[in-house]
Amino acid sequence: MIIKKNEEEKQWLVDTKYYNLPKDEYFKLESGLRLPELKLAYEVYGELNDAKTNAVLICHALSGNAHAAGYHAGEKKPGWWDDMIGPGKAFDTNEYFIICSNVLGGCNGSSGPNTIDPTVGKPYGLSFPIISIKDIVNAQKKLIEFLGIKKLLAVCGGSMGGMQALQWAVAYPETVFSCIPIASTYKHSAQQIAFDEVGRQAIMADPAWDGGNYHEKEHPSAGLSVARMIGHITYMSNDSMEKKFGRVLKKEKLGYEFTAEFEVEGYLRYRGDSFVKRFDANSYLYLTKAMDYFDLQQNKKLSEAFKKVKSRFLIIAFSSDWLYPPYQSKEIVKALKMNGADVTYCGISSDYGHDAFLLEFGEETKLIKHFLNSTKKKLEK
Amino acid sequence: MIIKKNEEEKQWLVDTKYYNLPKDEYFKLESGLRLPELKLAYEVYGELNDAKTNAVLICHALSGNAHAAGYHAGEKKPGWWDDMIGPGKAFDTNEYFIICSNVLGGCNGSSGPNTIDPTVGKPYGLSFPIISIKDIVNAQKKLIEFLGIKKLLAVCGGSMGGMQALQWAVAYPETVFSCIPIASTYKHSAQQIAFDEVGRQAIMADPAWDGGNYHEKEHPSAGLSVARMIGHITYMSNDSMEKKFGRVLKKEKLGYEFTAEFEVEGYLRYRGDSFVKRFDANSYLYLTKAMDYFDLQQNKKLSEAFKKVKSRFLIIAFSSDWLYPPYQSKEIVKALKMNGADVTYCGISSDYGHDAFLLEFGEETKLIKHFLNSTKKKLEK
Repeated sequence: MIIKKNEEEKQWLVDTKYYNLPKDEYFKLESGLRLPELKLAYEVYGELNDAKTNAVLICHALSGNAHAAGYHAGEKKPGWWDDMIGPGKAFDTNEYFIICSNVLGGCNGSSGPNTIDPTVGKPYGLSFPIISIKDIVNAQKKLIEFLGIKKLLAVCGGSMGGMQALQWAVAYPETVFSCIPIASTYKHSAQQIAFDEVGRQAIMADPAWDGGNYHEKEHPSAGLSVARMIGHITYMSNDSMEKKFGRVLKKEKLGYEFTAEFEVEGYLRYRGDSFVKRFDANSYLYLTKAMDYFDLQQNKKLSEAFKKVKSRFLIIAFSSDWLYPPYQSKEIVKALKMNGADVTYCGISSDYGHDAFLLEFGEETKLIKHFLNSTKKKLEK
Repeated sequence: MIIKKNEEEKQWLVDTKYYNLPKDEYFKLESGLRLPELKLAYEVYGELNDAKTNAVLICHALSGNAHAAGYHAGEKKPGWWDDMIGPGKAFDTNEYFIICSNVLGGCNGSSGPNTIDPTVGKPYGLSFPIISIKDIVNAQKKLIEFLGIKKLLAVCGGSMGGMQALQWAVAYPETVFSCIPIASTYKHSAQQIAFDEVGRQAIMADPAWDGGNYHEKEHPSAGLSVARMIGHITYMSNDSMEKKFGRVLKKEKLGYEFTAEFEVEGYLRYRGDSFVKRFDANSYLYLTKAMDYFDLQQNKKLSEAFKKVKSRFLIIAFSSDWLYPPYQSKEIVKALKMNGADVTYCGISSDYGHDAFLLEFGEETKLIKHFLNSTKKKLEK
């Protein structure tokens, strides 16, 4: 049991573990290139049962990491989806064994552009090969095998995590018993690629980026901050921005100056500034690129992409999410239904925009708790 | 008559003129500050009638200029709204005297941050005072007075131009006989401010910007280009991006590299690159700020803002415009109706997003031609 109740702090203390691909192996990528090593940071919560049938894989979004729930010793903030994972919660750690790993290409412990290339002894930088969602999932598969798990009760994720969940169901139909993509898509649209590209251009426009070779120098904070600000606008809905900020000023009246005069300006700057302290600019380039490459359809009928799928599905979308609009989720539902798959679609009415998958945990909890419970019963049959 | 038919080229040749505030005057701004001078670049098309009752003022959007129609000698591209202005067109130069001036704060001939501050003999840079839409309109009023026009048959503009048109109707009810705001708003929302702020941050993050003092050095092209790319995404609709680009690649297959691989990436980079050749980064800061400050409502009921208005209105919005969504135009209509104003609202169904005001000239022509004709008849009564 990994989660320990600290009676003093009334917190679940967890720690991050690391998986390494055996030294004599390399990791093959969709591009045909090979990575000389593979390291994945991961955390687990709850206990794996003897039959190893209660494992649930949580896939994180662009800026997430392996620390999905509980507290790291000495830290005041819990993991990014702590509202959803824990005893009695949606992903009930009394019932399920929850796994979350930092994605390949990320910057929180897993192999990525800011980790050391063992062949040269310094950070990869842009020599890190371009990766895809398929590669991210294949890396997670290595971890799952290492943990001795043959079948995942569920794979779940929001946003980029939802793409991974879908990729799991498509690539490993025998391994994935159920799949829960939230606020996600089966392929990046032109507009989704466009927002990512502008973020990348903002990073690359920063001279401190220096072709990705900034590891021992000043980091491209200004560029990464702008990229994050663009992202943040797309994560909120027009309504939620209006309700949260409207035209409220930070001071009593307009100062006729280029400081952050409106609350919304201050918020964006704050979000940009705090992001650069915890995220790597090169990882931002690689992960947005992986999302832009994501396309299960590949110019065919979408239903063909799901032909071999065996999972049951709970697909969740949010009414005001304009970054990954509900119509994209509904297209997945339709294509799965064409294959006779067991699919439940839930459109949640919410003002929070794309961010809703991190905020509407009340509704999500009810839906997922019930879905996991019925899935468990089906698996036990 | 300013427009001359060049028989050789079959083009209407036009030229830009300049208005200067008399040397002994200064120009007072909403902030309370004074500009030591005021220069406005402007163009006119058609002839002013003897009664001076056929003048129509066209107000341009963020990246527009005084050159709205016809051709400058030796140039192959006509003015930015040439589809709408000319003999027999929506703004029929056989009937009306059309005026368009580059806005105060702009970078195409009018006083702005890149023009010379006469008190020090070098470009203003950030010492140029922050201006508002009200200031832009007050500057245009000086030009209109200089041209000897007491009443404008119509003031029309799209986007930022629509804000100016509304401001004209509110500030100068006796001067504006009719008003045609297109794809616009009565105040910038939190999301609209947010997009502008990220664009400004992109410019200011470019070291070449150097606090606005780049006039004799390399310009902040990278930052301005990113700002323009963000803008372009907001000018198109999700549908129009999907139809125009989808996931089409520039090459036969993915190259697994950070070049512009998708058509939409290439388009954005091209748009960014071409913009920096014709626009000034500091002007971008000042004009986006002016739009962010724009708020006719001022925490009151919107209908109060329109209490003194005497114009008749044709208000046009486009179904897929998510930057200035139709609901904002409809709020204007409602507030005007509360004051008993003569208002016609036309929602045009279009996939082009905000850009529709520059592209849907077929529909716009029908609506505006008829509206101007009936307005003219009313004025003559």
